[in-house]
Amino acid sequence: MPIKAFAAQNCSVARTLSVLGERWTMLVLREVFLGNRRFDRIRAELGIASNVLSDRLATLVEAGVLERRRYSERPDRFEYWLTETGLELQAVLLELLKWGDAHMSPAGPPRVIVHTDCGEVIESKQICSHCGGELHARNVRSRLGPGATDEDRAAELRRAA
Amino acid sequence: MPIKAFAAQNCSVARTLSVLGERWTMLVLREVFLGNRRFDRIRAELGIASNVLSDRLATLVEAGVLERRRYSERPDRFEYWLTETGLELQAVLLELLKWGDAHMSPAGPPRVIVHTDCGEVIESKQICSHCGGELHARNVRSRLGPGATDEDRAAELRRAA
Repeated sequence: MPIKAFAAQNCSVARTLSVLGERWTMLVLREVFLGNRRFDRIRAELGIASNVLSDRLATLVEAGVLERRRYSERPDRFEYWLTETGLELQAVLLELLKWGDAHMSPAGPPRVIVHTDCGEVIESKQICSHCGGELHARNVRSRLGPGATDEDRAAELRRAA
Repeated sequence: MPIKAFAAQNCSVARTLSVLGERWTMLVLREVFLGNRRFDRIRAELGIASNVLSDRLATLVEAGVLERRRYSERPDRFEYWLTETGLELQAVLLELLKWGDAHMSPAGPPRVIVHTDCGEVIESKQICSHCGGELHARNVRSRLGPGATDEDRAAELRRAA
């Protein structure tokens, strides 16, 4: 089930993590992105308990990230497919992968990314939607947006103090 | 402490999650990115238990994401600052934020991103490091890389079956 303490925060990072922030969830998604869509095979690849996998899949279906498609009757069996909303999470996986490649995989990347439009092995790069300049931690800041509440404004003042 | 079952996988996503995948860790990082660097104030903003926060901070320091800097003696007090390695995690936070803005914050973004080079409120966009084309889930695939093992090759065959 989604993490309530995260869903209750008025923060889009926390809300995303209310769906993705349980242990194993991102790795379940990794398997589905790799084309591994069936319960028993996801469980076998990850080596996790059935009840944990059931819970994570239910959360992802409820959040609209995955959808169940029946592939057999008697017994009923389902595959888990990424929705359009779920496909957008590739961006998160690519950034987790990139950081791990850079800092935690000294023997070289276990898996590389191919951009099928140009056919090359690539990395993802983040750019500005307005001017196209490359983003890095020293040219990005954040400020309160239209969805901010009075409590957000108070927290912002506390952080600035 | 890092999640051992993730660190043991030959996968850069899993290895990153061995450091970031505990509940609350990404939100601790959010606070530090927002300039909230002191234990008591991070704890107060997040409303989490001291032992949980201590554990998460220790993992992040051990992984080289944060470094402790003393700001007071008698009593010893420390601030937690992002290292260069830690600053690179902004990319992950931006993608979590973007997805949450798009799918989980119907009242509008609580927080917006400003690209200080151009001064505009922006979104992050992911492009190909080779050709500059925009990346999306249908023009990216992955394949085994130089760090792949025999076990990875066997898993790839199982997934393709």
